[in-house]
Amino acid sequence: MNSVNPQDFDPAGAACRLSEAQQPSSKVMRFGADEPLTLDCGQSLAPYVQAYQTYGELDAGKSNAVLVCHALTGDQHVANEHPITGKPGWWATMVGPGRPIDTNRFFVICPNILGGCMGSTGPASRNPETGEVYGLDFPVITVGDMVDAQVRLIDRLGIDQLFCVIGGSMGGMQVLEWAARHKERVFSAVPVASAARHTSQNIAFHEVGRQAVMADPEWQGGKYLENGKVPRRGLAVARMAAHITYLSEQALHLKFGRNLQDRTARSFSFSADFQVESYLRHQGISFVDRFDANSYLYITRAMDYFDLAAEHGAVLANAFKGTRTRFCVVSFTSDWLYPTRESKEIVRALNAVAADVSFVEIESDKGHDAFLLDEPELFATIRGFIGSAAARRGIAAARAG
Amino acid sequence: MNSVNPQDFDPAGAACRLSEAQQPSSKVMRFGADEPLTLDCGQSLAPYVQAYQTYGELDAGKSNAVLVCHALTGDQHVANEHPITGKPGWWATMVGPGRPIDTNRFFVICPNILGGCMGSTGPASRNPETGEVYGLDFPVITVGDMVDAQVRLIDRLGIDQLFCVIGGSMGGMQVLEWAARHKERVFSAVPVASAARHTSQNIAFHEVGRQAVMADPEWQGGKYLENGKVPRRGLAVARMAAHITYLSEQALHLKFGRNLQDRTARSFSFSADFQVESYLRHQGISFVDRFDANSYLYITRAMDYFDLAAEHGAVLANAFKGTRTRFCVVSFTSDWLYPTRESKEIVRALNAVAADVSFVEIESDKGHDAFLLDEPELFATIRGFIGSAAARRGIAAARAG
Repeated sequence: MNSVNPQDFDPAGAACRLSEAQQPSSKVMRFGADEPLTLDCGQSLAPYVQAYQTYGELDAGKSNAVLVCHALTGDQHVANEHPITGKPGWWATMVGPGRPIDTNRFFVICPNILGGCMGSTGPASRNPETGEVYGLDFPVITVGDMVDAQVRLIDRLGIDQLFCVIGGSMGGMQVLEWAARHKERVFSAVPVASAARHTSQNIAFHEVGRQAVMADPEWQGGKYLENGKVPRRGLAVARMAAHITYLSEQALHLKFGRNLQDRTARSFSFSADFQVESYLRHQGISFVDRFDANSYLYITRAMDYFDLAAEHGAVLANAFKGTRTRFCVVSFTSDWLYPTRESKEIVRALNAVAADVSFVEIESDKGHDAFLLDEPELFATIRGFIGSAAARRGIAAARAG
Repeated sequence: MNSVNPQDFDPAGAACRLSEAQQPSSKVMRFGADEPLTLDCGQSLAPYVQAYQTYGELDAGKSNAVLVCHALTGDQHVANEHPITGKPGWWATMVGPGRPIDTNRFFVICPNILGGCMGSTGPASRNPETGEVYGLDFPVITVGDMVDAQVRLIDRLGIDQLFCVIGGSMGGMQVLEWAARHKERVFSAVPVASAARHTSQNIAFHEVGRQAVMADPEWQGGKYLENGKVPRRGLAVARMAAHITYLSEQALHLKFGRNLQDRTARSFSFSADFQVESYLRHQGISFVDRFDANSYLYITRAMDYFDLAAEHGAVLANAFKGTRTRFCVVSFTSDWLYPTRESKEIVRALNAVAADVSFVEIESDKGHDAFLLDEPELFATIRGFIGSAAARRGIAAARAG
């Protein structure tokens, strides 16, 4: 094949995805027309839906709740089989019975972010005012808005204070917003492979992805769902570009090098001669089957807008003033998307307000994606930090699994 | 504007570009049907055209010729106003009277590479067999093919040995091929910000660009020129992605940071809120006006195929065995596309065959593009190396300018 063509995509994917966006295979919490969520842009959203999953049981004191925040293309299916792909949950190695976030001990909540496409209200949802799919009529949201929506979910669940808020990448941004906007409600916080703002380079890569989506005529000015289209090729290109940033140069080298794909010599054509080309094409195609293009635009925009210091008088430390939360900040040596220096900025700001903070830089050659992969040092770090924080909070040991 | 739209592009650009591809504003050397160029893919190319520029005068002994090899999106207009953009030559700071490559002393030749779109035969040229534009019927070429075509040009100019072959990025790859394939014809060689092979990550970024072009319906399976179309948006996205790799994270930070473009607050829309977005969109749009999409596919492919060690029994040093060429290898500290370790591989290989090699790593925060920019240490390095090599070769001092 010369390129990623429409016939490479699974036609059932779009239908399945739309069904998950509008009738998700998870729990949902509905907020009515009389409970508008005020957004950072000034608009209000009502009614709206917050989709989420839970694992384990909330203890009598409601003291053992762990909120897991997902990244750009993640969702609420953190530790169960994914309803579209059939694959294990995206953090099944971290969350589950006997795992570092032990569901025999903790009550784990994982919400699909506002603006997402797995059941929480987002651009693929129907606008209750018009009955049409929102598309670009959905308001531009922020990471703070996502968190404010999660606060309401936690309220409804009757939880005053979360024992822990944890997440990687954009999940880490949510962790930081929780710790900044809702200090009293976070006992401990673990931002992994994250940053307190998006850099110029981060914005640049996202802008390339957005332009790739919007350049696809099937995007139809954002109205593709009404028109029965999907901007498959644009979204696939966006994912391919983003995917490179999730891996380190070394990881790509070790995984693929210059190895050829199913051939012994160069084809002197535009086929996927190299394994890395074939791999990227596959990443692009399979992403389209499970993700909504407009959600991709909205979520990347929210990440680009994220700048915690700017929300607090341009001084990051102000975001954390008066905090009593225990922090564990984690970065990876080969992560060039959210490099260690960005985590150190967070740590410096926390130190400036005398916060209780541990910082761990984990040696890894896997790049940004390390936070999702089998990294024993990450598991040990989280297990240790959470275990010690749980002891301080007096959370009972794990039930027999 | 929400995205890069067809109306953002200059409609005159395509016509002007096509005219340059078929009737260039530069010298041309024509090779007849009886002078086929045998390509690495096994096919032959005939007849074909090699477009080029020259500056300065060849001395009586034909000893003062400097061949400048251009990079992916460069061309032969190294030191004169560009016929499409009206901008100064891409290396006017390096080449000219009194410049490090002093045209009062040296005879400078800069060929447009085979496969390019500024007059040398490439996919935008007419296939003499059919009278149609080549498009994807053009054979897939290699960096070695580009160099073999340049050898014929040098033959025609009556030059036995080039005093110097110099180039940055893909220009440096050509320098290395010259030094490997045509040892006796290169007195000195200067690969700048280059590598002896394309890494997995390099290939990955190029593949994203190619997929962006091919995903554009206006690409028309490569036949856009016959059909009066241009895959503007796809090529613009490809250029945007590539452009990020040419700059360091620090350069982007210093140049743009998170500064907003012509506004004081976020727009909560998909407009180019940030300066870096506006800059990238401009880079994409202006590139389309001066470059051919199929040429972009062919040249990126040639770069991906480049692996000098593989051509020499998997041992890079073999490529240089017996060389008497003087080398000066230059890299930049913040270049993450062709980082210093790639230049060091070249230096190691040259040392292994006891070649005469200097290596300079230049401290710069400008990333890969540093080789095109105002870098005093680069100018001083080239001036020093070339001056000393010219003295050894007995080239007369500069004429009064």
